[in-house]
Amino acid sequence: MAFQAFMLHFPTPTLLSHSAAMKLTCTQADLNTHLSLVSRVVPPRPSHPILANVLLIADGDTQRVKLTGFDLSLGVQTSFAAEVETGGTLTLPAKLFGDIVSRLPEGPLTLETSEEQVATLTALSGHYQVRGISAEDYPSLPLLEEGDVAMLPVEALLEGLRGSLFSTSADEAKQVLTGVHLTVEPESMEFAATDGHRLAVVQTTNAGGADGEAALKTGFDVTVPGKALRELERMVQMHPATESIAIRFDQGQLIVEWEHQRLTSRLLEGQYPNYRQLIPRQFSRQITVERRAIASALERIAVLADQKNNIVKMMLDSAQQSLTLSVDAPDVGSGRETVPAQISGEDLEIAFNVRYLLDGLKVFNSTEVQLQCNTATSPCILTPLGGTKMTYLVMPVQVRS
Amino acid sequence: MAFQAFMLHFPTPTLLSHSAAMKLTCTQADLNTHLSLVSRVVPPRPSHPILANVLLIADGDTQRVKLTGFDLSLGVQTSFAAEVETGGTLTLPAKLFGDIVSRLPEGPLTLETSEEQVATLTALSGHYQVRGISAEDYPSLPLLEEGDVAMLPVEALLEGLRGSLFSTSADEAKQVLTGVHLTVEPESMEFAATDGHRLAVVQTTNAGGADGEAALKTGFDVTVPGKALRELERMVQMHPATESIAIRFDQGQLIVEWEHQRLTSRLLEGQYPNYRQLIPRQFSRQITVERRAIASALERIAVLADQKNNIVKMMLDSAQQSLTLSVDAPDVGSGRETVPAQISGEDLEIAFNVRYLLDGLKVFNSTEVQLQCNTATSPCILTPLGGTKMTYLVMPVQVRS
Repeated sequence: MAFQAFMLHFPTPTLLSHSAAMKLTCTQADLNTHLSLVSRVVPPRPSHPILANVLLIADGDTQRVKLTGFDLSLGVQTSFAAEVETGGTLTLPAKLFGDIVSRLPEGPLTLETSEEQVATLTALSGHYQVRGISAEDYPSLPLLEEGDVAMLPVEALLEGLRGSLFSTSADEAKQVLTGVHLTVEPESMEFAATDGHRLAVVQTTNAGGADGEAALKTGFDVTVPGKALRELERMVQMHPATESIAIRFDQGQLIVEWEHQRLTSRLLEGQYPNYRQLIPRQFSRQITVERRAIASALERIAVLADQKNNIVKMMLDSAQQSLTLSVDAPDVGSGRETVPAQISGEDLEIAFNVRYLLDGLKVFNSTEVQLQCNTATSPCILTPLGGTKMTYLVMPVQVRS
Repeated sequence: MAFQAFMLHFPTPTLLSHSAAMKLTCTQADLNTHLSLVSRVVPPRPSHPILANVLLIADGDTQRVKLTGFDLSLGVQTSFAAEVETGGTLTLPAKLFGDIVSRLPEGPLTLETSEEQVATLTALSGHYQVRGISAEDYPSLPLLEEGDVAMLPVEALLEGLRGSLFSTSADEAKQVLTGVHLTVEPESMEFAATDGHRLAVVQTTNAGGADGEAALKTGFDVTVPGKALRELERMVQMHPATESIAIRFDQGQLIVEWEHQRLTSRLLEGQYPNYRQLIPRQFSRQITVERRAIASALERIAVLADQKNNIVKMMLDSAQQSLTLSVDAPDVGSGRETVPAQISGEDLEIAFNVRYLLDGLKVFNSTEVQLQCNTATSPCILTPLGGTKMTYLVMPVQVRS
């Protein structure tokens, strides 16, 4: 954890202007792996042709090759070791270059560029020339040299992302709701996401301040685009960091750095809803049920529910200590499943959108699930018992008979 | 092989009219496997609602359940063993019923139907009701009780399908070219397919007349829709027949039967082009090359060729005993690969659509490939050396410089 006074700094283009003859040798495996990593954020139909390219920087001093993909909002950078004979820069069409490299046989590759921005790739079997665009025209990724830093254990970051991302809204018009709201405190971080129908909140504990950085002194909160965090989740899973990961925030930007990877994203502007007041503090009914049993019963119920309005009815039977799930899709069919459950509180009939229940159950990492509710018209809370410290709130559906 | 005088016979609907209460018990695995087999031919948007259903016939005498899917052109039937307490028939919505069954846990299932055409499926965990439609309205699959029968070893059938199907036209307007032309002789069968740009011909040897059936006395030829044969290829791979398979032809229909599976398809009408006259008999140049080496080089060349007009240039160098493949996509890039080859005849530069070459090389089942050609504007023949008895003709492309 750290609290430092840096300034948001966009590097000057002069850093990238040495586009003359570059020459390097690397393995097909390295180039292919790292190209596919950055290519994922390259937009398929960009506003400007150069954004369809990846930026390649060969550094003779560090003997590394750095690749960058950027859509002006989300940027990804990665680097790998190579024999850099002559350093230089160039941008190359991400898809075309990646498609060739991925089909080359394993082994050494040589990459050379000419003054005319043409890259020549030489493999054992043959050689390819690909026309690039000068790196001078490539937009720079924001560099944060100032701002707040939170250190998060990798496991905590992944838990937070996995437990929240599924609840973001897919509707671009919903703005802040397309993102995950992060509340960063000196000792903890909270991930929250809601699309207006359900809400997922995950609490994680920060790592101790590493590398002599000072502890975060005050808390703050930001909303990060879901798209950027999905990419972050994927990258961290593929290229695991050692223990903990630094997340920097400032000036409307988030920057995550670990090992030789870096992800930057603009933040979403606008007031995030005050979700904490929606979570009930007391419940008159509590149900504990095996996660797999209820999830697979709901999967079957969903086949029929999807035909009409996605509604599943849930009947709490405390005498039988069972939960009965049922669906009725007139003119199509009906279904009924009963799952053993530990139930406290009176019997109740309550209805839900089956997809919302399934979305939550899929990310839960526990053997048992706890459901807590009060009435058929008030919020229900699902939690993975003994798993992630997570609260999943689902609003019931009112069924008129 | 057989030559018998049967009549095309459509069974009368009375056979299927006992739609009253049926009851059977089977395993989830059996019902699921066989439902997915027939569901593949059920049209997603049928002309009549009942065609979105599968026909289910429970037979108390044989203790088997027979399932049928039919789009009025292509029909698939399969059956499996079950405990049939009361025989009966019903049609059920293929997708919905299949989706429920596929999600049920392994174990026994009971299926009962009511007078109201509702099926009740009972599993260990719960039960489902699905509304069906009376089997009386389901169209009957054609039954061939007359016509020509060819017996083909399963391996020969699969080789014929694999070696020809990829060359059919995907353009429905091309009619007979969307099918595979079968020339059936007493001792052999020839599979041919062409889309006007390339032609694939496979020769196979028939199996001896089995089951006391008389040998086919005269030859004949038909054109079968590619779609039906693709389904046949898939079914035969999943449910292998013992040694050989009977293919019956008559009255514009083909019927293939093996084990408990049956596929029927209408034949395509119209004159199939006289393709044999297109195949040159003599060649001035002959090249032998390793299949994998040329295929993977072409895969890389194709990345650039796909950007423009799919054209790859091939240069025969008999002095070097090598084949050089090259592509030039102006403003994008260029590529060049050299593959060792045994070449007889003079040097030549010839160009092809790279996709046609790759399509053929992908289905070849040999280590080496032979290319035979005369000039840069006459047909080239590819054959899998020592593999399937197959001729793949590709027309070159004329490159104006």
